[in-house]
Amino acid sequence: MNRFIIVTIVLLVSCLSASMVSAGAKGKKIIHDAEYAILEAQNGKQWAEDDKAIDKKLAELRKKNGGKPPNFIYILLDDVGFGEIGMDELSVIRGYKTPHMSKLSKEGMSLQRMYTEPSCTPTRVAMMTGRYPTRTGTTEAKATLAGDGLNAEEITIAEVLKDAGYFTSHVGKWHLGDIEQAYANNQGFMHAEFPIHQQGQLAIMGRDMETVDIIRGVDPSRQKQTFTLDKLFVPDPAHMVTGVELRDGKLYEVDLKEGEEWNQKKYREMNERYQKHALSQLRTLAGQNKPFFLNYWPLFPLSFVQEFRSEYNTLNGGTMADILVEVDEWIGDIIQEVDKLGIAENTVIIVMGDNGPFLAYEGPTGQSDRIYRGGKTDHLEGGVRVNAWVKWKGVIEAGSFAGDIFHVSDLFTTLARLGNAMDGVPRDRVIDGVDQTGILLLGEGHGRRDYVHIYEGPTLKSVVKNKYKMHLPAPGDNPIAAPIFDLYRDPREKRPMDAIKYGPWAGGQFAGMVKRHMALKQKYPDRPPVFDIPYKGIENLRPETQKLLEVFMLGLPQKK
Amino acid sequence: MNRFIIVTIVLLVSCLSASMVSAGAKGKKIIHDAEYAILEAQNGKQWAEDDKAIDKKLAELRKKNGGKPPNFIYILLDDVGFGEIGMDELSVIRGYKTPHMSKLSKEGMSLQRMYTEPSCTPTRVAMMTGRYPTRTGTTEAKATLAGDGLNAEEITIAEVLKDAGYFTSHVGKWHLGDIEQAYANNQGFMHAEFPIHQQGQLAIMGRDMETVDIIRGVDPSRQKQTFTLDKLFVPDPAHMVTGVELRDGKLYEVDLKEGEEWNQKKYREMNERYQKHALSQLRTLAGQNKPFFLNYWPLFPLSFVQEFRSEYNTLNGGTMADILVEVDEWIGDIIQEVDKLGIAENTVIIVMGDNGPFLAYEGPTGQSDRIYRGGKTDHLEGGVRVNAWVKWKGVIEAGSFAGDIFHVSDLFTTLARLGNAMDGVPRDRVIDGVDQTGILLLGEGHGRRDYVHIYEGPTLKSVVKNKYKMHLPAPGDNPIAAPIFDLYRDPREKRPMDAIKYGPWAGGQFAGMVKRHMALKQKYPDRPPVFDIPYKGIENLRPETQKLLEVFMLGLPQKK
Repeated sequence: MNRFIIVTIVLLVSCLSASMVSAGAKGKKIIHDAEYAILEAQNGKQWAEDDKAIDKKLAELRKKNGGKPPNFIYILLDDVGFGEIGMDELSVIRGYKTPHMSKLSKEGMSLQRMYTEPSCTPTRVAMMTGRYPTRTGTTEAKATLAGDGLNAEEITIAEVLKDAGYFTSHVGKWHLGDIEQAYANNQGFMHAEFPIHQQGQLAIMGRDMETVDIIRGVDPSRQKQTFTLDKLFVPDPAHMVTGVELRDGKLYEVDLKEGEEWNQKKYREMNERYQKHALSQLRTLAGQNKPFFLNYWPLFPLSFVQEFRSEYNTLNGGTMADILVEVDEWIGDIIQEVDKLGIAENTVIIVMGDNGPFLAYEGPTGQSDRIYRGGKTDHLEGGVRVNAWVKWKGVIEAGSFAGDIFHVSDLFTTLARLGNAMDGVPRDRVIDGVDQTGILLLGEGHGRRDYVHIYEGPTLKSVVKNKYKMHLPAPGDNPIAAPIFDLYRDPREKRPMDAIKYGPWAGGQFAGMVKRHMALKQKYPDRPPVFDIPYKGIENLRPETQKLLEVFMLGLPQKK
Repeated sequence: MNRFIIVTIVLLVSCLSASMVSAGAKGKKIIHDAEYAILEAQNGKQWAEDDKAIDKKLAELRKKNGGKPPNFIYILLDDVGFGEIGMDELSVIRGYKTPHMSKLSKEGMSLQRMYTEPSCTPTRVAMMTGRYPTRTGTTEAKATLAGDGLNAEEITIAEVLKDAGYFTSHVGKWHLGDIEQAYANNQGFMHAEFPIHQQGQLAIMGRDMETVDIIRGVDPSRQKQTFTLDKLFVPDPAHMVTGVELRDGKLYEVDLKEGEEWNQKKYREMNERYQKHALSQLRTLAGQNKPFFLNYWPLFPLSFVQEFRSEYNTLNGGTMADILVEVDEWIGDIIQEVDKLGIAENTVIIVMGDNGPFLAYEGPTGQSDRIYRGGKTDHLEGGVRVNAWVKWKGVIEAGSFAGDIFHVSDLFTTLARLGNAMDGVPRDRVIDGVDQTGILLLGEGHGRRDYVHIYEGPTLKSVVKNKYKMHLPAPGDNPIAAPIFDLYRDPREKRPMDAIKYGPWAGGQFAGMVKRHMALKQKYPDRPPVFDIPYKGIENLRPETQKLLEVFMLGLPQKK
């Protein structure tokens, strides 16, 4: 087949894929990105065979488990990129170890090509909705008051699983917005306890935190303010809402009382509470006659205050390195609890990082830019490659690796499949997450993705296909000259490959990928960001929060 | 104690250490670098206790082994830096695996802070002599005719072990010079087969090699030569001596006959022969009633020709990545042979890289600059950090890590200790290699080194002390402002630490280290490079080699 014919087929398949779409109805085909149709046309037969084997296996497993699909525990760690955790041979050269995650890697499968989004909120959006964040209008939630967050129209994996009979429980960081529709309890979680914002508030802006080495110097009360007109342009965590909990259907703030200040001690207490509650939730959930989805997103290891606790001092000595060792123990405790409860064979445990290390604060935290170049916020591999393990005792091969490309959005579709809940996956919008159950149940090489589109916020910055990655040219520039990297040979994306060898074919094909990806958006446009007044639906707002909110409203376009 | 007193003691100890020196005699204290005296003053008591435990253990092991100390197999791989081998979790993201070395890492101890010299010859000199190469006058041997090499006055570990009753055998790359005194057979090896030069000749300059993608374009016969006056300034491997073997006390060239050309096939044959002979040597040596030292230095994985052998194709596809997988099997075969021969409990197997990847040819070879910054020839960690494993069945803890600093020269002293040959370690010169037997027998934390001086050729470029590393200031510049890095937090040496925090104390102390190191050279000066006529002592020089040699001699100062 010559190139012309290939291109023709490709376009045909792509059109076909789009034409199958019809809004909303269940039972229809999921609308994947254009690229998927090309893979399906080439591999569909094999996938159909795989599907039979997968369905058979899942049915057997449900039968063994009293008709129920497996429980899910999903632990997502903040700002921990590839090589930071669960690889003691590697972390030992950086002066610490995470033995519990290293043990997990030997008990489960390592997804060695897991891609996330380049920062917290987008990764969490992708996991929850199965969609690239830009499609949902939620590309970044803020650390301060913002009035934005995940649209109620989005359908989360928590909603999908809940509808299929799961008990859904969220504990820890949420960071999908400070508006009511975005709260965990309004996005499918039956149990929910989480801070409204994130560590930008909780781990940095406390009065005592501002005096420590790393972030010293921002406290305005210690500096002359002659020219200050806006006294609210200051770090002020205590006026914002901190942690909230759902009790009898209502949401209450639980961490601060009127007049109290936020500090490192409270941040630690909040973290320890979430860990304690994750464990107690686990025990409660295991005692119910329902499958469960426990979504536990710790705030730690993010920490910028050196606590000098001798049991967690490391050779590295960085604030995050030390706390990583503690969090590793916490994860070990959860895995151990699953064993103790006797539910290991019915429980899928997933542990992973949410994006690369934030290089803006590497150094004192003990993190670094290593293996891959770049970190949080970057489209470079260092921003979006993380360690990820899946353990399912007796089902997933212990100590196995999968080199297949996996995107965090695939968890949405894959959990839906494992949870016997595929009918809940919406058919009226593009779902980027592809079903990767084959990798877990049949092993490496059974993946259904060879591409990732990497966005920074709403901007498409690079595209991965197989082992190649193109850094996108500026609009109007010829893709033949855009830099293309071989990720196996050049994981740090340092040396673009010879343009004369790769430009004419790969450059052109990459440009085609981008065109198809963008063309599908004409039919299914990205959702615009949603805006609402923050903190609605929280029962016990403190007076200082009310005041902060009033000032925030002053800055808005006055609609009334 | 205030700083002044500390400095005074330090200088005293340093002087004491130097005053103990007396030339040649055995039984006296080994002369280590000045820095060692400072460590000994602080840790000597503990070391003396450790020594008792070590001696007891070694005596027991010898008793169990019919009075003999253990055999040694030392396998040194070319241009393979840290993270390239034996860590499948890591290499899988680069598209290949080395399962046999990964297995070795689980059967032995991983020396996770092994430092080499930044290139082939210096690393091999340091291992053989226990000395920084600059002290020996051998900082770089060439790929072409050079007339230089390791001085006969140097005492190698082969000589030390031979004198103590070992059978010593060398197979593979040597690269310690093309002059008679430097040959392996003249430096302590009773069996010796090796190429006189290195892969610069053997893997690059063959006529067919010059036409492949990586090195295409250097062949002068394919380009007009109008202005060429010197027709010998060309790649010409077939005129140089290739592989030699010691037979009945005499050295013969074995790879080329008169008029033959060198090519990739011959390079592969040479490699396969060394592997085959390493195995047959092993069987022969195991049958003798002597302990043995088998020094096997493969030329592979260095290769620049893509051979497209389907059984070794990798996802990576680089020439070296593919061959690394093959060499990994070879190493597996040797380890398996040791088991088969029933000598595993009396045999110490050491496998390691000799320096970082050569970034000058990364890309087509499939290598890359990863984890550590820099590569071969650099004083950066990427140039000098390698994977290293030591297996001694039943003696060294399987799957253990040692985070202690280890320098390749320490193998000299450590093998001497294990081989009950400490009396053979010379006392008339500085021995940089410290005795690290404690790490192997007592475990992590029993190392005797917290420093490394990193030279590029004859120039001291940086100094490591504990977790810190200083890139040396230019002569005359104030060390207070020289960049100091925290190697745990910043393994890529990207962000010098705050000068105000570290300059005044660490900067000053680093300057002191360098001063002491240099001061000792006044008493024990670096040996000047040796020069001699190449190829003496080879029985069957081909006519073309004779001619090459004649031309080479024309360029020398005419002494006669």
